[in-house]
Amino acid sequence: MTQTLRLGIAGLGTVGAAVVGMVARRAEALAAATGQSVRVTAVSARDRGRDRGFDASGLDWFDDAVALAQSETIDVFVELIGGAEGTAKTAVEAAIAAGKHVVTANKALLARHGAALAAAAEAKGVVLAYEAAVAGGIPVIKAIREGLSGNAVSRVYGILNGTCNYILSRMEAEGLTFEACLKDAQALGYAEADPTFDVEGFDTAHKLAILTSLAFGIEIDADGVSVEGISAIQPLDLTMADELGYRIKLLGVAQATETGIEQRVHPTMVAKASAIAQVMGVTNAVTVDADAVGELTLIGPGAGGQATASAVVADIADIAAGLRRPTFGRPVAGLAAPRRVEMQRHEGGYYIRLTVHDRTGVAAGVATRMAEAGISIESIVQRRSAKAASTDPQGLSGQPVPLVLITYAATEGSVREALAAIDRDGLLAEAPQLIRIERD
Amino acid sequence: MTQTLRLGIAGLGTVGAAVVGMVARRAEALAAATGQSVRVTAVSARDRGRDRGFDASGLDWFDDAVALAQSETIDVFVELIGGAEGTAKTAVEAAIAAGKHVVTANKALLARHGAALAAAAEAKGVVLAYEAAVAGGIPVIKAIREGLSGNAVSRVYGILNGTCNYILSRMEAEGLTFEACLKDAQALGYAEADPTFDVEGFDTAHKLAILTSLAFGIEIDADGVSVEGISAIQPLDLTMADELGYRIKLLGVAQATETGIEQRVHPTMVAKASAIAQVMGVTNAVTVDADAVGELTLIGPGAGGQATASAVVADIADIAAGLRRPTFGRPVAGLAAPRRVEMQRHEGGYYIRLTVHDRTGVAAGVATRMAEAGISIESIVQRRSAKAASTDPQGLSGQPVPLVLITYAATEGSVREALAAIDRDGLLAEAPQLIRIERD
Repeated sequence: MTQTLRLGIAGLGTVGAAVVGMVARRAEALAAATGQSVRVTAVSARDRGRDRGFDASGLDWFDDAVALAQSETIDVFVELIGGAEGTAKTAVEAAIAAGKHVVTANKALLARHGAALAAAAEAKGVVLAYEAAVAGGIPVIKAIREGLSGNAVSRVYGILNGTCNYILSRMEAEGLTFEACLKDAQALGYAEADPTFDVEGFDTAHKLAILTSLAFGIEIDADGVSVEGISAIQPLDLTMADELGYRIKLLGVAQATETGIEQRVHPTMVAKASAIAQVMGVTNAVTVDADAVGELTLIGPGAGGQATASAVVADIADIAAGLRRPTFGRPVAGLAAPRRVEMQRHEGGYYIRLTVHDRTGVAAGVATRMAEAGISIESIVQRRSAKAASTDPQGLSGQPVPLVLITYAATEGSVREALAAIDRDGLLAEAPQLIRIERD
Repeated sequence: MTQTLRLGIAGLGTVGAAVVGMVARRAEALAAATGQSVRVTAVSARDRGRDRGFDASGLDWFDDAVALAQSETIDVFVELIGGAEGTAKTAVEAAIAAGKHVVTANKALLARHGAALAAAAEAKGVVLAYEAAVAGGIPVIKAIREGLSGNAVSRVYGILNGTCNYILSRMEAEGLTFEACLKDAQALGYAEADPTFDVEGFDTAHKLAILTSLAFGIEIDADGVSVEGISAIQPLDLTMADELGYRIKLLGVAQATETGIEQRVHPTMVAKASAIAQVMGVTNAVTVDADAVGELTLIGPGAGGQATASAVVADIADIAAGLRRPTFGRPVAGLAAPRRVEMQRHEGGYYIRLTVHDRTGVAAGVATRMAEAGISIESIVQRRSAKAASTDPQGLSGQPVPLVLITYAATEGSVREALAAIDRDGLLAEAPQLIRIERD
């Protein structure tokens, strides 16, 4: 006689409705794979009347997610409400306290309260699973937690926000501005009316903080992520990137250094031939550098009802099959305290686009200041417009022109210092653009 | 008090030695992740004296792998001997009969005897795990078996043999012949002295048969794989592929069709912008098309001691953590019988490179025969050499010249029929080259 694993789904938006449909559609396969019958038995949502495309008549309906979380009628509480505080948090805490396993897609909740929730789950002997919280349908949590058990991770980085990648892909392909592409993304439903959370990098930072904790075995530290979004990227940067052999992606990067784990989100130059550079549109990708496998890259859908539901259902199947792994790869007591690394200490290559006054000696002045800060230049591109070249062949007008530098590995502190000196010298017509380069 | 999971490693080549080292190096992390202490307690290998870079003094040494498999002193038998028959098979059978879990990297063994071994493991309630058998360090078995639990798979395809991908990458990058690149691959240790098994596609076929069973829930059917290797690929094909927007990869493809599951291994044209086209050198990649996630691609190392050991240790960690999934995703009794699909019925685009006599009306003759077979041509490229154009401007000499066609979707049967007709018409100076196109 097969046992039944009873699911309570809190939140019946696109993802919740997809989970209900998927569990029903895959009932036979899930039972065969896990040895247990898996069924949605109860749901909660605010509006009972709305048509969600499935028959809810056989399900217990709760108006209150917390009551569902505590109900004797479920074994697994699936939290699809969202938000770091409020009902989502209260309900997850209640479910754990009541001895239920929890599956959540809530990255904000985990980024803020992951360690405390993991400790509570551990104390109760229940699973807290969150595959859907990072990179949507890509099974990256499973890959790191289980697939790379034999590895020490040295770096994990990825395209974790489809909205930003869609915007950057469009800007690059069509030479459009950030603002124009954002408007299209909003029209297509890829971006919210208030896009700040996505385009300024905060969504990526939440996901990165979760990956960092899991990959490096440290307590989650969302406030330790240095965050910079894509709103300042200009079409000229994408053109220059292309010419220099790069693409620009918003990456979340967590990297082991001698002084701690760097966690940073920023627009990034990646080599055009790298796997991650091929990832266009709303697709996500994660690359893990680890001592035994070298480099492992996973590419897939980062959002969408079906893809997110796929990750939720995978977590449910693991629970049904009896998988019991610690939330962040090891017991909470064994997670190391985070040691933050200041961005000033970050070392890497830089793309620096200066807007300088088109005068004799400017390039020399810039190069001198870079050299004084100990920065080696890999390439330098100064290009006057054809018009300027014909009307002002001697470069006497001092019109603003772009001067682009690619540096060899340098610290962020030294780059900032050199730029400040160049600014003091009066060479800059506009604030400089700085984009970090990530080597694969 | 933590329990100890005792490992017996049979076969101490590169992979076996790497597993011994990795289990020791990751002892603390494995215990934290799985709740059990994991230790290599016994080994077997033919030559006890050889230096393998680790201290074997604390380990029980068995000269006979079967005796190790049956020993009371181990809980998990790790088979790294290799080969579909002989000691590897006998020892794995003995381990299962003795109630030991088995971890193996042996694709040939699984391809030939997977269903019988899975049935035996199931009857004994032990795990038969084989992450290392397919795509080396890429956790693709886990991704399909667990990460895509909510999905119905419609196609799985990949670059599963690093030797072939290395050879094709070199041929493309440097315009070299197959023979020259094979020689280099042999010198670098990427190819065996007898390279047939790799370059003629049999290794890929073994791995594909395993993926097919798992992804589609059917009994493994290695003999049902249609196999074609890369030895007939010529530099001109790679040049033409490049011009037409493709790269050539040796793919293993398993695809659901109305009449059954196609399993085929062949050189394949893939769009240059696809993720899989970026995979160069000995790297492997697998793409899964599934109903909920759409497309998921995993890219990583396909071979090497450390990468393969990584997959072996991941399987060991799963066993330590209590994961018990059926070998091929569902109990053996629930696996469907394979329904083979003849290659003649395969439908897809084709690259056809004809070597025709350079005479007036040849292209028209070819096009007519294609039309008669119901095949639509997407593009046609006929290019005479500059020399031929100057010495024989009217095309009267009948010198052999290449004529390349790209077809829209057509069945293999109709393409073969058209080529036979073209051959009967006396238009061909050489046997035609046929390369299938795979759309992403």
